[in-house]
Amino acid sequence: MRREENDLLTRTDAGTPMGELFRRYWLPALTCDELPHPDCPPVRVPLLGERLIAIRDSSGRSAILQEACPHRQASLYFGRCEDGGIRCAYHGWKFDADGQCLDIPSEPAVSRAREQIRVQAYPTLERGGVVWVYMGPPELMPAPPELEWATLPPYNLFVTRRLQECNYLQTMEGGLDSSHLSWLHRGTISSDPVLGTGRAGTDSSILGIIAADRNPRYDSVRTAGGLLLGARRMAGEGLYYWRITQFLMPCFNIIAPTGDLTLNAQAWVPLDDHNCWSWAVNYYVDKPLGEAEREAMRRGGGLHVEFVPGTHQSAANRGNDYHLDRAAQRGGDNFTGIPSFAMQDTAVQESQGRIADRTLEHLVSSDDGIIVTRRLLLDAARDNQAGRPIPGLGPQTQAVRAGSLIVPQADLKQVDTAPLRPLARDQRDWAADGNAE
Amino acid sequence: MRREENDLLTRTDAGTPMGELFRRYWLPALTCDELPHPDCPPVRVPLLGERLIAIRDSSGRSAILQEACPHRQASLYFGRCEDGGIRCAYHGWKFDADGQCLDIPSEPAVSRAREQIRVQAYPTLERGGVVWVYMGPPELMPAPPELEWATLPPYNLFVTRRLQECNYLQTMEGGLDSSHLSWLHRGTISSDPVLGTGRAGTDSSILGIIAADRNPRYDSVRTAGGLLLGARRMAGEGLYYWRITQFLMPCFNIIAPTGDLTLNAQAWVPLDDHNCWSWAVNYYVDKPLGEAEREAMRRGGGLHVEFVPGTHQSAANRGNDYHLDRAAQRGGDNFTGIPSFAMQDTAVQESQGRIADRTLEHLVSSDDGIIVTRRLLLDAARDNQAGRPIPGLGPQTQAVRAGSLIVPQADLKQVDTAPLRPLARDQRDWAADGNAE
Amino acid sequence: MRREENDLLTRTDAGTPMGELFRRYWLPALTCDELPHPDCPPVRVPLLGERLIAIRDSSGRSAILQEACPHRQASLYFGRCEDGGIRCAYHGWKFDADGQCLDIPSEPAVSRAREQIRVQAYPTLERGGVVWVYMGPPELMPAPPELEWATLPPYNLFVTRRLQECNYLQTMEGGLDSSHLSWLHRGTISSDPVLGTGRAGTDSSILGIIAADRNPRYDSVRTAGGLLLGARRMAGEGLYYWRITQFLMPCFNIIAPTGDLTLNAQAWVPLDDHNCWSWAVNYYVDKPLGEAEREAMRRGGGLHVEFVPGTHQSAANRGNDYHLDRAAQRGGDNFTGIPSFAMQDTAVQESQGRIADRTLEHLVSSDDGIIVTRRLLLDAARDNQAGRPIPGLGPQTQAVRAGSLIVPQADLKQVDTAPLRPLARDQRDWAADGNAE
Repeated sequence: MRREENDLLTRTDAGTPMGELFRRYWLPALTCDELPHPDCPPVRVPLLGERLIAIRDSSGRSAILQEACPHRQASLYFGRCEDGGIRCAYHGWKFDADGQCLDIPSEPAVSRAREQIRVQAYPTLERGGVVWVYMGPPELMPAPPELEWATLPPYNLFVTRRLQECNYLQTMEGGLDSSHLSWLHRGTISSDPVLGTGRAGTDSSILGIIAADRNPRYDSVRTAGGLLLGARRMAGEGLYYWRITQFLMPCFNIIAPTGDLTLNAQAWVPLDDHNCWSWAVNYYVDKPLGEAEREAMRRGGGLHVEFVPGTHQSAANRGNDYHLDRAAQRGGDNFTGIPSFAMQDTAVQESQGRIADRTLEHLVSSDDGIIVTRRLLLDAARDNQAGRPIPGLGPQTQAVRAGSLIVPQADLKQVDTAPLRPLARDQRDWAADGNAE
Repeated sequence: MRREENDLLTRTDAGTPMGELFRRYWLPALTCDELPHPDCPPVRVPLLGERLIAIRDSSGRSAILQEACPHRQASLYFGRCEDGGIRCAYHGWKFDADGQCLDIPSEPAVSRAREQIRVQAYPTLERGGVVWVYMGPPELMPAPPELEWATLPPYNLFVTRRLQECNYLQTMEGGLDSSHLSWLHRGTISSDPVLGTGRAGTDSSILGIIAADRNPRYDSVRTAGGLLLGARRMAGEGLYYWRITQFLMPCFNIIAPTGDLTLNAQAWVPLDDHNCWSWAVNYYVDKPLGEAEREAMRRGGGLHVEFVPGTHQSAANRGNDYHLDRAAQRGGDNFTGIPSFAMQDTAVQESQGRIADRTLEHLVSSDDGIIVTRRLLLDAARDNQAGRPIPGLGPQTQAVRAGSLIVPQADLKQVDTAPLRPLARDQRDWAADGNAE
Repeated sequence: MRREENDLLTRTDAGTPMGELFRRYWLPALTCDELPHPDCPPVRVPLLGERLIAIRDSSGRSAILQEACPHRQASLYFGRCEDGGIRCAYHGWKFDADGQCLDIPSEPAVSRAREQIRVQAYPTLERGGVVWVYMGPPELMPAPPELEWATLPPYNLFVTRRLQECNYLQTMEGGLDSSHLSWLHRGTISSDPVLGTGRAGTDSSILGIIAADRNPRYDSVRTAGGLLLGARRMAGEGLYYWRITQFLMPCFNIIAPTGDLTLNAQAWVPLDDHNCWSWAVNYYVDKPLGEAEREAMRRGGGLHVEFVPGTHQSAANRGNDYHLDRAAQRGGDNFTGIPSFAMQDTAVQESQGRIADRTLEHLVSSDDGIIVTRRLLLDAARDNQAGRPIPGLGPQTQAVRAGSLIVPQADLKQVDTAPLRPLARDQRDWAADGNAE
């Protein structure tokens, strides 16, 4: 990859091509329960290089505002939400959820100065336990996100976000890269309390297929929303076993479950060019998560982590070598010696550097998923710059599901993936009214 | 404000216009008791972007010297004061309080090399419990500072300095800005053990005036030493209640007491462009401070803070969100939830960024004090560059006092502020001989 | 010194003149016992601005490889050594000790892609308890190092490396500078458990000479390997007492023992331009070290330090003012108040700045050793750039010993230093076969 392309793909401040592309989509900002009640404390949520805070106003409406008070740049994080807005701690200037200044206490009552004062406010909505934000041009705001997990009732899913100390792209590439599973996660993949293929509910015939063909072939197809990323294995005479990951623009994936286990979804949102928010979602489309499953996720199972209390920082992190245990690495099944699935990913991803230098890479055929994703992002960034249409904005393009299929041998583009599509919302037998919007 | 002006006002390294302006005045460097006895250990006191140390030599004289030994740049901080000078720990080179090299032990006794070797030494003097330093051109050294508190006996005052992790100017602007009192310090201003208006000694009729007119008007007048910054409220038929803060060049203020409480003074001295020393002084002009008042200040009352022991860092600081207590903020009188008066200031000031970006501001009429101070500083910096006279150098211009007055309605410049002036030193009934000079 | 020279001497990344000069020599990288057994965990050993790891493969061979996997730049530090190579934790790519890729598991068995893939691997050898690395052009690789201590059996020596948070050159200059001993190390030099002149085994007549002439003269002579750096004192009628330190290109010294104590050797290897590895070696040429001596070194005696466990960081360091004890400094023999010999050096060296600014220096006659060493390094860097021969590459030039002599008065270049030369290896009565090579 040329340096120009690496720069283009990894820089997301306002005004950059990739930054403007991200700003065309609804992005997850924080979980709804980080804003637990009306007029709760503000939360810092820096995104795409912008310093922002999230609040929930007196009416219960969530909002995402620029952090700096326009008066003299003090942080609204120290402010207090009350009576339909947030007041800056410094001089009491008050702003509503639309960013409009409501009060400048030191001004005479007749003053209309406040009418000219605004903070940047970005539209939000709440779905799937997440506060979503749209940071793009108002006239281009798309319909609300229809990723399947975002449309489910809260008891069906478990969602976390955490800080990762590197650029979003290398983190995302880790999530799109099937081929690292048998190395980075070896040992953990069977014993993990959430993903573990050794759990009841996994399908032993499928495990047999996976064990028998250790050298899957990769194929991909562009979709209206992003990409189908398939890994295929031989599944007996004339048959392929396809495992299909969905990539959705600009930074989402959905990973097929093994047997009856949960679906997994991820999202990677740039905090700035050197840090990102790593989102993990486990969900059943048709039933609630069990309490034991939730507890396992809270303790860092699956794609979740155990946190430093009160923060979004994983307890295992760069500063402590991710709790690397060399004896476990040497003696046991765990190929890395790093205890948790998610931290195995984080360790190698952060070790690529704050922004991986892709000019030094040597890609091979199993990197196909990464290559096609980069190409898709580059095309979309350029299309967006040129005012051409970009993929993944229509709700129908997002309502997809990952899964696995045993089908007659054929290229991925000939596989009928209809069985993977979720039911239309009006055909579902559960109510969506648990979700504030 | 244009970027050029923001840069000019906030940069104070040697050679910058504002740096050269600061170097025309006596500045507080450290407290006298940080150098507790002759030949005590050196103290690091970086100022205006220069690495400096303070010592007290065998004769008891304080001195401020460049930190780097001219031999090979090792820090004199590791050195030892003895027999009329400080010896560098590396090779024993010895310098006196004037910076003159007295000894190069490895040189032959006949060598005169030491005569050519000096460290930069800045003149100091001690007044008001403070070691003052003059870092400007020797031929322009002004008379010793005559700020009233600096001329008082030590038992009348309490002085501290602390590190603040941002540019001096935004810290100073916080000290000149009356209008934040009713917001940032709401709740604390009545309960603070030093400033508290709820204390015995405050004047209930004045509190009534303040309560009745919540929308004071601001006015200012340039003086020979700096500025009078007035806030006026209606005080009955044809009368104004003026509270008058004194700003003295280049970085001092004096705040009027409420009723019989102490006067407050502050100073803000650049450490470098991204950090400053924040000085706080409480004093009575005519009587000693009580021990209970001193103890309250030691514990962080008023404009003082509780320190990380052995440092100039406040225990509440950027790293721990200034001990922000969200429950206290939500439930109680304390508008910020930050326990101490001084840390409320620090939180919002540091949140403006290491150097506040004043090109993004939206100033209003209550920012008058800030606006006129910036203009005064810009004028003085340019006058100094052009070799024209600058304000605040004459001792008589510094002998002023803050206070409050009830007077017939008139502009501030028509108010007779003579009642606020301190007595001339020879008219006072206390002796100044407690102060080393 | 001009800025250009300071830059030239202190910058050692690949492609810089000094970086290319360092790359012409075998350099110590880590101790052999940091790689305790075949297939032990990798160790990070950044050198000369390059991110590197050290491994020991299944056959017991040590190797130094680039840290970044060529596939997608994940760190091989997280990898596992097994079956003749190290596998990257991310995708299992495997490399042997020569850097050749042996396996790309995701590639089809017939793929020859791996044949084109390499990581940078630098030649290593093990001598004197140290893994040495050669990072220069293969065709110019010199013979193995013949510094005397590197040829000794392991029971004769004690070797440590530690991180120092400044440029290598100022650290090295500290090691070549005899004249700081009587100041920086005053008090410690007699009581140190390793170097202490107060120990049994020191020669009281020599101590008498040293005490009697506190103003030694310095002289130096270029040798085929580097420099003789001599300090001479009067030793009675017509006699000089010479103490002779050997400097060997590009970063080694050997210090004469006092009486029957051990020889001391040091090496300073750039980690990057702002940090270096400081090596300390104590050794007897003809007998094993005693266990009590080893224990004293483990506890930070001599030029060694006590470590933060599991790291190369000294427990006393920049962050805690090197355990400076002002009361001890004031009251006692210890001139600095810093407890350990090695940390006294580190304190002043790090205080010179990350890269000392030599344009501000004032050198005197006792800095002769530093001056001639800089000149030697500058000459060698320029000779190397021009393709001319450089000193210190031949094994015979390295087989030298530091020591002290009482001889008739004469310049250093007239002194017969033959008594200081080690025996040729084939004349020694001990076997060298304890050293893997």
